Amino acid sequence: MQIDLNADMGESFGAWSMGNDRALLDLVTSANIACGFHAGDPDVMARTMRMAAAAGVGIGAHPGFHDLQGFGRRRIRLSGDELGNMIAYQLGAARGVAAQSGARIRHLKLHGALSNMASGDADMARACFAAALRVDPDLIIVALAGTAMEAAARDLGATVAAEIFADRAYEDDGSLVDRSKPGAMLHDPTVAADRIVAMLRDQSIHSVNGKRIPCRIDTVCIHGDGPDAVAFASSLRQTLGDGGIHLNRFG
Amino acid sequence: MQIDLNADMGESFGAWSMGNDRALLDLVTSANIACGFHAGDPDVMARTMRMAAAAGVGIGAHPGFHDLQGFGRRRIRLSGDELGNMIAYQLGAARGVAAQSGARIRHLKLHGALSNMASGDADMARACFAAALRVDPDLIIVALAGTAMEAAARDLGATVAAEIFADRAYEDDGSLVDRSKPGAMLHDPTVAADRIVAMLRDQSIHSVNGKRIPCRIDTVCIHGDGPDAVAFASSLRQTLGDGGIHLNRFG
Amino acid sequence: MQIDLNADMGESFGAWSMGNDRALLDLVTSANIACGFHAGDPDVMARTMRMAAAAGVGIGAHPGFHDLQGFGRRRIRLSGDELGNMIAYQLGAARGVAAQSGARIRHLKLHGALSNMASGDADMARACFAAALRVDPDLIIVALAGTAMEAAARDLGATVAAEIFADRAYEDDGSLVDRSKPGAMLHDPTVAADRIVAMLRDQSIHSVNGKRIPCRIDTVCIHGDGPDAVAFASSLRQTLGDGGIHLNRFG
Amino acid sequence: MQIDLNADMGESFGAWSMGNDRALLDLVTSANIACGFHAGDPDVMARTMRMAAAAGVGIGAHPGFHDLQGFGRRRIRLSGDELGNMIAYQLGAARGVAAQSGARIRHLKLHGALSNMASGDADMARACFAAALRVDPDLIIVALAGTAMEAAARDLGATVAAEIFADRAYEDDGSLVDRSKPGAMLHDPTVAADRIVAMLRDQSIHSVNGKRIPCRIDTVCIHGDGPDAVAFASSLRQTLGDGGIHLNRFG
Repeated sequence: MQIDLNADMGESFGAWSMGNDRALLDLVTSANIACGFHAGDPDVMARTMRMAAAAGVGIGAHPGFHDLQGFGRRRIRLSGDELGNMIAYQLGAARGVAAQSGARIRHLKLHGALSNMASGDADMARACFAAALRVDPDLIIVALAGTAMEAAARDLGATVAAEIFADRAYEDDGSLVDRSKPGAMLHDPTVAADRIVAMLRDQSIHSVNGKRIPCRIDTVCIHGDGPDAVAFASSLRQTLGDGGIHLNRFG
Repeated sequence: MQIDLNADMGESFGAWSMGNDRALLDLVTSANIACGFHAGDPDVMARTMRMAAAAGVGIGAHPGFHDLQGFGRRRIRLSGDELGNMIAYQLGAARGVAAQSGARIRHLKLHGALSNMASGDADMARACFAAALRVDPDLIIVALAGTAMEAAARDLGATVAAEIFADRAYEDDGSLVDRSKPGAMLHDPTVAADRIVAMLRDQSIHSVNGKRIPCRIDTVCIHGDGPDAVAFASSLRQTLGDGGIHLNRFG
Repeated sequence: MQIDLNADMGESFGAWSMGNDRALLDLVTSANIACGFHAGDPDVMARTMRMAAAAGVGIGAHPGFHDLQGFGRRRIRLSGDELGNMIAYQLGAARGVAAQSGARIRHLKLHGALSNMASGDADMARACFAAALRVDPDLIIVALAGTAMEAAARDLGATVAAEIFADRAYEDDGSLVDRSKPGAMLHDPTVAADRIVAMLRDQSIHSVNGKRIPCRIDTVCIHGDGPDAVAFASSLRQTLGDGGIHLNRFG
Repeated sequence: MQIDLNADMGESFGAWSMGNDRALLDLVTSANIACGFHAGDPDVMARTMRMAAAAGVGIGAHPGFHDLQGFGRRRIRLSGDELGNMIAYQLGAARGVAAQSGARIRHLKLHGALSNMASGDADMARACFAAALRVDPDLIIVALAGTAMEAAARDLGATVAAEIFADRAYEDDGSLVDRSKPGAMLHDPTVAADRIVAMLRDQSIHSVNGKRIPCRIDTVCIHGDGPDAVAFASSLRQTLGDGGIHLNRFG
């Protein structure tokens, strides 16, 4: 059994730092790099891509809404054309900076509110992914496992990497437990890792109530921000290895 | 004899319009499309590229400093790495939106203060163009005829389109007469066209004092803003035709 | 009988122009000036305030969401604290530029999506207006007549100018007819003016179905953008005068 | 003998944190709060002003160029009118947020490249300070001791707080030693404090070559960023106290 570990990176901006990309790059197999709209700037992108390429990590574009102050976490309603243009712009920009940095963009993952909205809205997801595939037909689309987003990516004939979260609890319908509810977050990396091993063996999401929702699982998202992110990722990686799960880049 | 006519386009932003791209596209052979940093947004870019592709006009990326309020006309000092990343980002973004819009980016021209600074600064020009060529080795670089910018582009082995201005007077050293001086601007399209015909025949810039500065001339820049832009371009095109100059896209 | 006429102004940005403020200032009695978040910049604000002060027009701050590309027309969900800080910032900025420009801010009117959301959401309206009144307790709040927004402003003890639209049809509940429906917009200034005269006589909104919704009416909003804005305003002003309505600044 | 200690604060933005304002507020007597153009946003400003007011620290507006990515450290050439409008906007915004936050703006200090440019350019300094004083005639202007900036503020009749840097070496002409030169920065707080005590006793700047440049000294700037900022400030404060210097807010 094998799995990919992905994390968001390149979320610094100008003089402001976020996360510990250097340390995380030794722990994950895929990096989702912000594209300048919600975080990142051309210099941060170039620096992060160089580090990721040197670490042998798979590099992805991580586009979000154009909202620096809100870090792409505020919902903005756009038309399908606007979404497509916005994705094409950010993905293209990431590919441009990658060419300049000796790196290569091989996947795409939506960020923040854009991802939240598209996970339950097939039209939104399709508008985003269709544009991305026009920019690069070989692009791997990272989609939340079992969602309308994943279905939209598959309908487009894309190569899909289906994703679960390491540290988020799931409802019986496969959606994430709202952060405001108790138990929404898993803080213990051993508990998280054991759950991931079990879900991989079953190829199912395990809900908080013990329900199993069959789905394909290709990659596990870990969070790079927060003071314990590196320790969590490190412990998770160790436990996965102990559980016989081999870490390997998707695609 | 033949020549290319180029104009800046796609300089609207959000709810704000600028220029008359629709009319200009029937008069020029190359369009330089703003990339979102000094003007343009992903939707404006997509719309403009679709129109330009439909009109059969050559499409270029037109990157500038990240300064919407100043329209890219304010000088900002950046390092070579920062310049390279900024160009790679904007060129990549333009290529992404082009792929989404059924268009293709085949040239690059620097905008505003970035162009002014790079025309006399070979290191700046080299940092910008080297990055652009890493993104697309086949890209045609539009460079001001006879400047350090042109030399830098040629040193990099790029295909270069050397450019003169239709409506600007030249000093004896081949630089532009400062806008604050009398006679800096040519407002009469017939005068401008006659001068262009003469310069093309000589393959030389003609200065205000009658000096001839030999240089290659591939394209003539006309300005798309201002109330008389379309009339000027239309008249210029007519007079060039009467002078036996065939209009043709460079490259 | 008397009424105030207000219009949005100062909606240019950097090199981009919008509207014909110079002409409109001779036709209205109050100007709502954009504060730099959805339109306007410090220079546009200063220029517009100087013109408005010279024209003897009442000057207001017109804050919106921080969204230049969307012109403040896209809905963004913010907390009450965030709304308050955003309003205090923009109103303060307007007061600062006014001091620099020999003008004085005497009213506040919310813009675009912020206004739309707050018209039906008393908590939002209260968060915005409470912050504004902390910055200036004597500020006049312009609120859509008969809405939760007006009620919120009155609950705070503010001086309120209740507003109707010159060119928009009303539903039976006093809300605006959606722009997508036929008859939503009144394009004939004589029809619009006759309706305003009737509504002022009744101190009621007249709905598309002939229903009368009693409310106080202090000011009429006319739109400054669009090619016919000045002609519409001019004709409206004339017809109101013919109907015995005296134009006078509120407050 | 007494002195004020000032530091820049409120330099976080959206999801990005910078500095340790909470700890610094116990060590300084004046806080210069970023106004949203180079750092800070309305929420960061409100939060920082509340903390500063609670700590009894004097609160100032700290305007800079509109350049988030460059953190206001890149030089941008503006006209006097543009500078005045930019300062009036940011100072007004700070006053607005202060009113919303139970705080009061009593001083102004220019940031980054704007300060560097204005320190040697009396016209620039005058344009900035004249605008600020139109917004608030009682505002205290913090100006670099002995510079054209200080002279410009005094010429305008402003109350001035003349400032020296705790950790920067001075040339014989009173300018700062360029950061690229050895010895430009003082890293030892005891050395820095001893120098400050000596400079206060002499009311002179002491240059690296031992030259004394007489000037008035009202406040000492310490840097809030960097890992050792709090320790440096704490040690400096202690040593100043041991040297018989009483810490007190200017004005």
